Amino acid sequence: MDERHLRVLLQQLKTDAVDIDAVVERLRAMPVQDLGFARLDTHRELRQGFAEVVYAESKTPQQVATIMQRLCEHHERVMATRATPAHFSAVAALLPQAVYHEVARIIAVAPDQATCPLAQPAVAVVCAGTSDLPVAEEAAVTLETMGRAVLRRNDIGVSGLHRLLDALPELQAAPLIIAVAGMEGALPGVLAGLVRAPVVAVPTSVGYGAAFGGIAPLLTMLNSCASGLAVVNIDNGFGAAHLAARILAMGKG
Amino acid sequence: MDERHLRVLLQQLKTDAVDIDAVVERLRAMPVQDLGFARLDTHRELRQGFAEVVYAESKTPQQVATIMQRLCEHHERVMATRATPAHFSAVAALLPQAVYHEVARIIAVAPDQATCPLAQPAVAVVCAGTSDLPVAEEAAVTLETMGRAVLRRNDIGVSGLHRLLDALPELQAAPLIIAVAGMEGALPGVLAGLVRAPVVAVPTSVGYGAAFGGIAPLLTMLNSCASGLAVVNIDNGFGAAHLAARILAMGKG
Amino acid sequence: MDERHLRVLLQQLKTDAVDIDAVVERLRAMPVQDLGFARLDTHRELRQGFAEVVYAESKTPQQVATIMQRLCEHHERVMATRATPAHFSAVAALLPQAVYHEVARIIAVAPDQATCPLAQPAVAVVCAGTSDLPVAEEAAVTLETMGRAVLRRNDIGVSGLHRLLDALPELQAAPLIIAVAGMEGALPGVLAGLVRAPVVAVPTSVGYGAAFGGIAPLLTMLNSCASGLAVVNIDNGFGAAHLAARILAMGKG
Amino acid sequence: MDERHLRVLLQQLKTDAVDIDAVVERLRAMPVQDLGFARLDTHRELRQGFAEVVYAESKTPQQVATIMQRLCEHHERVMATRATPAHFSAVAALLPQAVYHEVARIIAVAPDQATCPLAQPAVAVVCAGTSDLPVAEEAAVTLETMGRAVLRRNDIGVSGLHRLLDALPELQAAPLIIAVAGMEGALPGVLAGLVRAPVVAVPTSVGYGAAFGGIAPLLTMLNSCASGLAVVNIDNGFGAAHLAARILAMGKG
Amino acid sequence: MDERHLRVLLQQLKTDAVDIDAVVERLRAMPVQDLGFARLDTHRELRQGFAEVVYAESKTPQQVATIMQRLCEHHERVMATRATPAHFSAVAALLPQAVYHEVARIIAVAPDQATCPLAQPAVAVVCAGTSDLPVAEEAAVTLETMGRAVLRRNDIGVSGLHRLLDALPELQAAPLIIAVAGMEGALPGVLAGLVRAPVVAVPTSVGYGAAFGGIAPLLTMLNSCASGLAVVNIDNGFGAAHLAARILAMGKG
Amino acid sequence: MDERHLRVLLQQLKTDAVDIDAVVERLRAMPVQDLGFARLDTHRELRQGFAEVVYAESKTPQQVATIMQRLCEHHERVMATRATPAHFSAVAALLPQAVYHEVARIIAVAPDQATCPLAQPAVAVVCAGTSDLPVAEEAAVTLETMGRAVLRRNDIGVSGLHRLLDALPELQAAPLIIAVAGMEGALPGVLAGLVRAPVVAVPTSVGYGAAFGGIAPLLTMLNSCASGLAVVNIDNGFGAAHLAARILAMGKG
Amino acid sequence: MDERHLRVLLQQLKTDAVDIDAVVERLRAMPVQDLGFARLDTHRELRQGFAEVVYAESKTPQQVATIMQRLCEHHERVMATRATPAHFSAVAALLPQAVYHEVARIIAVAPDQATCPLAQPAVAVVCAGTSDLPVAEEAAVTLETMGRAVLRRNDIGVSGLHRLLDALPELQAAPLIIAVAGMEGALPGVLAGLVRAPVVAVPTSVGYGAAFGGIAPLLTMLNSCASGLAVVNIDNGFGAAHLAARILAMGKG
Amino acid sequence: MDERHLRVLLQQLKTDAVDIDAVVERLRAMPVQDLGFARLDTHRELRQGFAEVVYAESKTPQQVATIMQRLCEHHERVMATRATPAHFSAVAALLPQAVYHEVARIIAVAPDQATCPLAQPAVAVVCAGTSDLPVAEEAAVTLETMGRAVLRRNDIGVSGLHRLLDALPELQAAPLIIAVAGMEGALPGVLAGLVRAPVVAVPTSVGYGAAFGGIAPLLTMLNSCASGLAVVNIDNGFGAAHLAARILAMGKG
Repeated sequence: MDERHLRVLLQQLKTDAVDIDAVVERLRAMPVQDLGFARLDTHRELRQGFAEVVYAESKTPQQVATIMQRLCEHHERVMATRATPAHFSAVAALLPQAVYHEVARIIAVAPDQATCPLAQPAVAVVCAGTSDLPVAEEAAVTLETMGRAVLRRNDIGVSGLHRLLDALPELQAAPLIIAVAGMEGALPGVLAGLVRAPVVAVPTSVGYGAAFGGIAPLLTMLNSCASGLAVVNIDNGFGAAHLAARILAMGKG
Repeated sequence: MDERHLRVLLQQLKTDAVDIDAVVERLRAMPVQDLGFARLDTHRELRQGFAEVVYAESKTPQQVATIMQRLCEHHERVMATRATPAHFSAVAALLPQAVYHEVARIIAVAPDQATCPLAQPAVAVVCAGTSDLPVAEEAAVTLETMGRAVLRRNDIGVSGLHRLLDALPELQAAPLIIAVAGMEGALPGVLAGLVRAPVVAVPTSVGYGAAFGGIAPLLTMLNSCASGLAVVNIDNGFGAAHLAARILAMGKG
Repeated sequence: MDERHLRVLLQQLKTDAVDIDAVVERLRAMPVQDLGFARLDTHRELRQGFAEVVYAESKTPQQVATIMQRLCEHHERVMATRATPAHFSAVAALLPQAVYHEVARIIAVAPDQATCPLAQPAVAVVCAGTSDLPVAEEAAVTLETMGRAVLRRNDIGVSGLHRLLDALPELQAAPLIIAVAGMEGALPGVLAGLVRAPVVAVPTSVGYGAAFGGIAPLLTMLNSCASGLAVVNIDNGFGAAHLAARILAMGKG
Repeated sequence: MDERHLRVLLQQLKTDAVDIDAVVERLRAMPVQDLGFARLDTHRELRQGFAEVVYAESKTPQQVATIMQRLCEHHERVMATRATPAHFSAVAALLPQAVYHEVARIIAVAPDQATCPLAQPAVAVVCAGTSDLPVAEEAAVTLETMGRAVLRRNDIGVSGLHRLLDALPELQAAPLIIAVAGMEGALPGVLAGLVRAPVVAVPTSVGYGAAFGGIAPLLTMLNSCASGLAVVNIDNGFGAAHLAARILAMGKG
Repeated sequence: MDERHLRVLLQQLKTDAVDIDAVVERLRAMPVQDLGFARLDTHRELRQGFAEVVYAESKTPQQVATIMQRLCEHHERVMATRATPAHFSAVAALLPQAVYHEVARIIAVAPDQATCPLAQPAVAVVCAGTSDLPVAEEAAVTLETMGRAVLRRNDIGVSGLHRLLDALPELQAAPLIIAVAGMEGALPGVLAGLVRAPVVAVPTSVGYGAAFGGIAPLLTMLNSCASGLAVVNIDNGFGAAHLAARILAMGKG
Repeated sequence: MDERHLRVLLQQLKTDAVDIDAVVERLRAMPVQDLGFARLDTHRELRQGFAEVVYAESKTPQQVATIMQRLCEHHERVMATRATPAHFSAVAALLPQAVYHEVARIIAVAPDQATCPLAQPAVAVVCAGTSDLPVAEEAAVTLETMGRAVLRRNDIGVSGLHRLLDALPELQAAPLIIAVAGMEGALPGVLAGLVRAPVVAVPTSVGYGAAFGGIAPLLTMLNSCASGLAVVNIDNGFGAAHLAARILAMGKG
Repeated sequence: MDERHLRVLLQQLKTDAVDIDAVVERLRAMPVQDLGFARLDTHRELRQGFAEVVYAESKTPQQVATIMQRLCEHHERVMATRATPAHFSAVAALLPQAVYHEVARIIAVAPDQATCPLAQPAVAVVCAGTSDLPVAEEAAVTLETMGRAVLRRNDIGVSGLHRLLDALPELQAAPLIIAVAGMEGALPGVLAGLVRAPVVAVPTSVGYGAAFGGIAPLLTMLNSCASGLAVVNIDNGFGAAHLAARILAMGKG
Repeated sequence: MDERHLRVLLQQLKTDAVDIDAVVERLRAMPVQDLGFARLDTHRELRQGFAEVVYAESKTPQQVATIMQRLCEHHERVMATRATPAHFSAVAALLPQAVYHEVARIIAVAPDQATCPLAQPAVAVVCAGTSDLPVAEEAAVTLETMGRAVLRRNDIGVSGLHRLLDALPELQAAPLIIAVAGMEGALPGVLAGLVRAPVVAVPTSVGYGAAFGGIAPLLTMLNSCASGLAVVNIDNGFGAAHLAARILAMGKG
């Protein structure tokens, strides 16, 4: 029951087509999502300008293709994360306009993917080493699929500090930084001490030995002495991008 | 060596008061912070409008008082976190304008603490249970000391969902939410699914048994299925507030 | 807004005292708990016959006393867990009928505490060693405060199997067993293999060395080969009792 | 030695066919299960109406088939968990009436599987996301194989709270809820705060990064602030169902 | 019901003083420990020559004293572990013959404590550092209280290998070695490679940093490449001694 | 340098063929194993009657075959653990008398494997479930290859206590018990409370969910309230057998 | 901008070809690495005599080959770690002088690999067991590729102490020892107590059960009672060698 | 038996005062430390110029004083770590020349403590924050007590990178760096990427929340992408200093 239906019902009450008891009963019984128009309606708006997302990892190629096709009927921007080439083959058969970002493992359908919106101030997505690239690309492509400009700077980990300092002027101009790092994970904390923008830190499961599948960089980032950074789950490039998009959308109601 | 000194040096070169070798040597030897005018000068601006912060926990009352007094000579907003009443006694003797926020364990000096700046849209600081209050208050008072308006909603944990839903309309109006929770820590993830604002999640060490000093809510928050939230360290209310202030300052250069 | 207010509002609509827009606005804005008459009203019933509970550990004696006094105005059964003798002194000054169960660390107000309701089939609360007694008593006294009969059998851990077998006939007659154990925590699993009743297992933080504050018995219980048992948090005697009460109340809707 | 044999022996003593020493020796030597008539005889009854269960994971298809065939000679309801299609092929060759539940990975033989016993109040088996489905189905099919009606509600995780609230009226009518969740695992705790029934929580190993193979949801569930829920092992859908069956059988002797 | 009572009962049957039904009922109802004469009677023998043990840590001085006094009525050797001087004061008031071993934290009553039984081959109790001494002494005094000779060699950790090699000839003569070590815990494994006797390894919680309360030496001992050693719980000197006594008693039925 | 060479050297000194300085130098430089005749010579004796063991897991079939052939030139009993059928093929080509124990994954060469030495009192090797069988068999076959009689009792885990009690009389007759268990690992502790023999506990990596590859049963065994048991590494059936052999060899120096 | 360019710029200022503002701007804008001549120029020197290293694990054979070829244009010593035979095939096609060290998994290009520089005092690289060999070889070959002499001693773990003592005289002559060990990891600590040289300890992931992929030896090494050793990451043979090379280069500026 | 005694013995053999059998017996029986003159004699030399060290934490003031006094009879440099003021009072009564370093918690007796040996190149001891100071001072004072010059640079953590860069020229001149850091522990890795000297990393237990008593910085340091650093135990400033002293003593054998 949406607002239009509610108004019809109240109109019927007003014209004695139904009585008060009947209205009370209808209200009592209406599904929660119907009540949503008052309180839970933010979901639609929330996602305006946002992509609909399919987590491909535990789904068959055919399932992913079917879901994306259905989503494309109602949404302008649709994407699947953790997608394999096999997923893409199935999707491309149904949605020829779909694009596969191999390193990011993302299948994307978006109107402006080609014409990267450089006019906006670009979110910086940086990573410490080349092996962090898949996670960083997941973040970057997610942002681009959502219509955001991205500035990529890779391989600027703290063990070669000059590379980081070299990239610093550009990073200081970014409104927001997503910093991806595995192994010891020190990059986001160092960066947060050098810039004024908020830093979203993404630990990766890259590394061996005592990296423990990402626990080491996760702890490093949580314990950073620098203020102004927050952490998302290990390898969660998508989540970092989604948070960034929320932050960028602040104040735009 | 700041820009003025550099110009003097170059002027001297131009007038042969020094030779090229001497200038090269001076540049070679100049301390890194002097170079900062080019690249590292953001620090000053970064902190404009921000409080200078003393971490009181490992310091004596006298040390905290001395540091705060010195900071007050140059800064308008100064605060100490994890401060005890004993810390406050020492500070108040030197800085009569200081205020002690007991639950938040913060000593604050700020021009507008009294006149809470309600005109701004207020950051929501919410917590799941009353025992999470000290951490939530650390976040809230930090924001207020930085000159930000705060909307507090306490005790709205997910085990009594109606309280959360009751507070929802107000929370949906906030530009940013800091959500503090111990024990199972589910509040931030549930909230992130209901609002459009970014959510900064703060796990607390509240709880017993398998809460393991905050590990349980930390993991819950990192693994939240909801997009749009990021996590700071256990009990780090200050860090969440500082990140929030950075986010709110975005685009204000 | 409860049902009565809703009817008044609809009546006003019917008589043109308000228009449809106003009703829609009122419905849109009404607090969630008001909607509860449809869906969230179970809370009241849920607690019928149940005790209202105060977690005393992080509260001052005066706070506990005040809260309990206020709860007693509306509830027949009120209790505080993790309460110290100091908590009890403060409570007893306001509520002379309160009783302090020292081992269980519970302050209880209940009409039938004295006359233990032996007519009902008693829930068995058993523990492996004498050091598990505080947790077992927390469970037992909670049940009694909720008006349930309890059969206590202590010190029947598996390292002296004859004691367990000795108590078996009585335990096999219980409709439900709460089994409390620290150290290696094997009692609940062994018991679940010998009885037909469901077993609620409570690990305790009793033990030293590799017991790791209750992790060892917790893992033992989770991994039990025996079917028919479930686990609550370490030292959470209250939680086990509350679950037991829910199970016993099944079908009495 | 069962009771009949004991009576024969005592009769022989009475008629001097044996002497007292011989009887003492016979009693001393009699196998423990024979003594069972006094104390351990609950096992047979315990399993009445319950399925005999084979854990297929570490067994060859031929072993599973042979064991199930043998069990079917004496039992009406027999099932194998963690079974692959290969297991089923071997079983179906011997037991044509066997049914394979692919998602649940269960091979079942039961008289009433086809005619789902809808007259009973149905146990609710809910899960947070589609990837939790195998574990939820293991629970649901186990209950059905034991002759219990099941109400399934999938994909109602807390990150989309409206779906949960939508399902709430049905769930509030269930006598018992099995709630399955991976990732952050908040569903069971939220649910326990909304219903009156006991909730059996099953963490799953679904998730990535800091989910740590199910540790994150396990801790969330153990630490839930809501009373009235207990936890079984990670991915242990069968165990949850078996506990549920025990609870439902309470008071039916 | 012991054997004597059983014979009386059977005699009564034989003489028609009772009938078969009555005997069956008596047997059916007899407490499990009574059945023990057949199978569980090893307990008495098991403890012959062994001390009765009280774990003092969680008990008051008066409780320990009372329990020890009662045990002394029936047993020759009685001891309390983890005992404080306050425990001893209370015990000594009731049992003047009790002896307090301060480092071992044991109160012992034993007939031959004074005259150490040097004729037997002595169990070697060795420890790596002086801080492991309390645990090693708990093992040594336990053995002596049980009437066993002990050879002590302290401070022979592997970081000063010459001390270990120096003690080697004596250790090679011991029938059994208890090796106690904290920090890195390498002593038992090195020792097991040098002697022919079985080695019981006891990790201690001595150490700091990454020793993690005994986890480090525990893991070291479990992973020792040397065959011929087994591990008991952290700080469990008593347990090691008890196991040693069992091993020494083998074949003495 | 063995004793014979030393005597030659001293003879040369006596006859002035060498001078004192030269002897001192030779002694100073002599390899440690030469000194061994004094102190480290126990190794030969230590292994008398013991098998030489090859850990096959990280070796190629050809390597294992070559090593075993070489060992067989000097030793009567040789075995390889963690061996695959491929290992066995390579070994059998060189050593036709070798036997492959498939469940135990052991290749063995021993004189008396066929004629099991039943005259000796047999070590009991028991396991909780059928999935623990490979580890239990590794222990049992190791003992048999070392010339020890073994009593096997499988599938007597504590969740079906009657099976354990049924096997108890035989187990109480064993001089030593090796108890193997995965999942919750309670069997060894329960057993240690019922027998007089020392119990060597072996946790296995069998299980799922919160068994964590054997950590759960390992902790259970370390924390057992029962005295008289010690623990070896997870899945280390060989180590348990080797320790057992050392214990059985005590006093036969 | 290097020093030469700076001098040109200053010369231009001196001759009025540019003005002061232009020089300030150029300095302000110059990339950080250009400033490096003053402070960060150590990198070049640092690596003199050192190999350029490619981490092959996450790269394709073609990528590794291309990178190594490019590095060889500027460097005398180039190596790839964690390289497979497939990597080597691709590299050898481009760089015929490359050598593949199979156990070490290293592809190396170095002028003096053939003529091992035995004149230098050799760094000792020792390992506890044969399964630690790949990690030890990674360290040894890295050192040799860097032009360092290496003394290898394998299989000298502490469970057979005589082998260690046998190798001791040679080890005592080494200026530095790299000690590699898995399982219980006691070798480096024992060694550090016997020699005067610094010991770099490398834990390996060799082992099973409670070795936990290298955590056990890592903790052992960190907690060693012996002074004079430090630890690198699990399996990090390369890192140990690189640290050793740094130490050996000390004082050679 | 030292070399002198051996020569006497051989002389006796030469003069027939003893026979060969007697010499063989004497050699066979001589204590291991006597053999030490050949192989284990490095200990004395090893410690030349090194301090004798007492670990005060687990000792009484009187014990520490007595041990230090005895050590001072034979050694020039003696120190106690983890010493309290109470320890110092007791020591000062016996050794008036002793000095107490309060922050470092070290009591030292050394000839040249006053006249800091500035001629040598100084080891740099740096720490990230002021709360790491006690551990850094433990390292620095240990080195000074051993007669080494120390360059201290405190509070140069990576969250304020300019402070680190500012100190860089001095640090680049140091032959060896000890870098101490808690919280996220990134300093040593960043430093190792900027200098040519080996870096000894010391994690501290400073921090809160997810720092877990030093685990977070420990993992950060182990996983550093930078080569050329190694790690010692948490808070082990003494161990880092001792390793540094060993490295500095290399080649001075």
